[in-house]
Amino acid sequence: MVAAPMPAARATPSCVIGVDLGGTKLLAGVVGPDQAVRHRVRRQALGLDQARLMAVIVEAVEEVRAAASDEVAAVGFGIPVTLDRRTGTAAYSTHLPLAGVPFAAVMSERLGVPVAVDNDGNCAVLAEARHGAAAGADDVVMLTLGTGIGGGLVLGGQLQRGWIGAGGELGHMVIDFDGPPCQGNCPNRGCLEVMASGSALVREASLRVARRPDTALGHALEEGRELTGPFVTELAHDGDPVARDAMHAIGRALGVGLSSLVNVLNPEVIVIGGGVIAAGEMLLGPARAELQARALLPARDAVRVVPAAFGEQAGLVGAALLARESARAAA
Amino acid sequence: MVAAPMPAARATPSCVIGVDLGGTKLLAGVVGPDQAVRHRVRRQALGLDQARLMAVIVEAVEEVRAAASDEVAAVGFGIPVTLDRRTGTAAYSTHLPLAGVPFAAVMSERLGVPVAVDNDGNCAVLAEARHGAAAGADDVVMLTLGTGIGGGLVLGGQLQRGWIGAGGELGHMVIDFDGPPCQGNCPNRGCLEVMASGSALVREASLRVARRPDTALGHALEEGRELTGPFVTELAHDGDPVARDAMHAIGRALGVGLSSLVNVLNPEVIVIGGGVIAAGEMLLGPARAELQARALLPARDAVRVVPAAFGEQAGLVGAALLARESARAAA
Repeated sequence: MVAAPMPAARATPSCVIGVDLGGTKLLAGVVGPDQAVRHRVRRQALGLDQARLMAVIVEAVEEVRAAASDEVAAVGFGIPVTLDRRTGTAAYSTHLPLAGVPFAAVMSERLGVPVAVDNDGNCAVLAEARHGAAAGADDVVMLTLGTGIGGGLVLGGQLQRGWIGAGGELGHMVIDFDGPPCQGNCPNRGCLEVMASGSALVREASLRVARRPDTALGHALEEGRELTGPFVTELAHDGDPVARDAMHAIGRALGVGLSSLVNVLNPEVIVIGGGVIAAGEMLLGPARAELQARALLPARDAVRVVPAAFGEQAGLVGAALLARESARAAA
Repeated sequence: MVAAPMPAARATPSCVIGVDLGGTKLLAGVVGPDQAVRHRVRRQALGLDQARLMAVIVEAVEEVRAAASDEVAAVGFGIPVTLDRRTGTAAYSTHLPLAGVPFAAVMSERLGVPVAVDNDGNCAVLAEARHGAAAGADDVVMLTLGTGIGGGLVLGGQLQRGWIGAGGELGHMVIDFDGPPCQGNCPNRGCLEVMASGSALVREASLRVARRPDTALGHALEEGRELTGPFVTELAHDGDPVARDAMHAIGRALGVGLSSLVNVLNPEVIVIGGGVIAAGEMLLGPARAELQARALLPARDAVRVVPAAFGEQAGLVGAALLARESARAAA
């Protein structure tokens, strides 16, 4: 986390704002002590230049603040960048023009309140570990399966960000060292992200449908429908054999990655979030089976693999938790 | 760690004994506040039944205690088992008949002093992180490359054992999900252990020498010499091309594993220990090159990959550190 110096002393925080800045959209809202989200706003973030993006963020927070009845004590941000704790800036940003920006310092000045900033995966695991699907557990791994795979680690009760804050890139564990090239800025091959993400689901379905064109998926393609993760998931729910096979393949790949995480970290709970978790047990079933077939005892029998509880609000709620902790520490 | 109830209150520890129980041998010695090891004894542990093994351990500790000038305040053990912190017993033991034994409680009663017990990999990383090759670093990964691959994690300054104490099995990260079956009690395939250990070195050399019999390694095999990790390493040092190629292959596999660890944990230092590190840069060179080619920025540029400082005494020194901490906490 990067926390900006507090502009002025304030009363005990009664109200904090959480902001989740994804690669395409922004969600912001007031988060109460019960983790309920109120006054939520949503903005598009894709394709904006840096100045416009920062302006959109400030406007969104101000809109939430105006709607809040209590004074806002702090604002927390989950952002999709690798933060370098040594400099307080975003060292790397795949999706948004934030590289090199001292985000916490800039936002604190623009908003006039204390600001906490962390990677979006770290925010999500914090929300799930403190109040969500892994509430009460001290050793929690979270994987967020979307177009890519993000993640976060709570170990020994603490968020583990690594030395300079670049840890938790769970999508970039290698599970097939001669596998397909990974995505985006990752130079690796056979990463979990390229084997078990929404993109992998689409690739696996495309490969399989060529051999089985006389299926619902094959017919949809003939009619010009674009293959997307949500569409393949929908067809799998409807029983399409190609979509189900593709889902099974990425579930197995996920389970291989889980076996590594269980052997290395021995978590009590692994939380699976992100859009792909809409597949539910079609994804988790094969993943759990592969985990059971591969990981070591006694850790493999001890771990629970569960879907996320906060859904798309995990990043927002976690960012607000960080803001509250940060404001408390500074008070 | 599992700590046994202290039989009686004692003075501040001036002297502790560390014991490293490997799969084949036991090392014990007095460890001073400067981490220097004195009065070291060595015993064979291989092939003993449980009663005899426990007796040999007690005799070795008593011999060291008799040689020590100061009173012994506590004894720490590093043992090659998976401890279950929920029960205080060894949940699983590949090499020694210790499964189900409440080791700390038994030893504390037999020795009449407080006893701390932890996995040998946890002891080794603690020694290296506090006083060895990674002294001063809060985020440290240690891999011990021998016949198998062990490991340990210090993250956020704390030893991370996982929920029930079964974490740190770094040899059992998958790097090739359709790879060769793993060793011992591991049901997985393509684990780092089966791709980058001393056993893997011997396998890679055996595969390669069949195609190149007219080499030093080929001639040695013809003369009836057995292939072992140390022998392949020696020939690699002498420039034998088969041995060097085999070393390069396991170095690359190691580097793939390191890329996963860097992406997931963002350590400041990765310490490589165990017998295979005798190969030095012949192993670390290809491993670092693979890491640089695969891991994400900025974490890959920030990490240092270094050989262990304590050599074969790492487990012993780490066990003594645990004993000292445990005695201090109880005082």
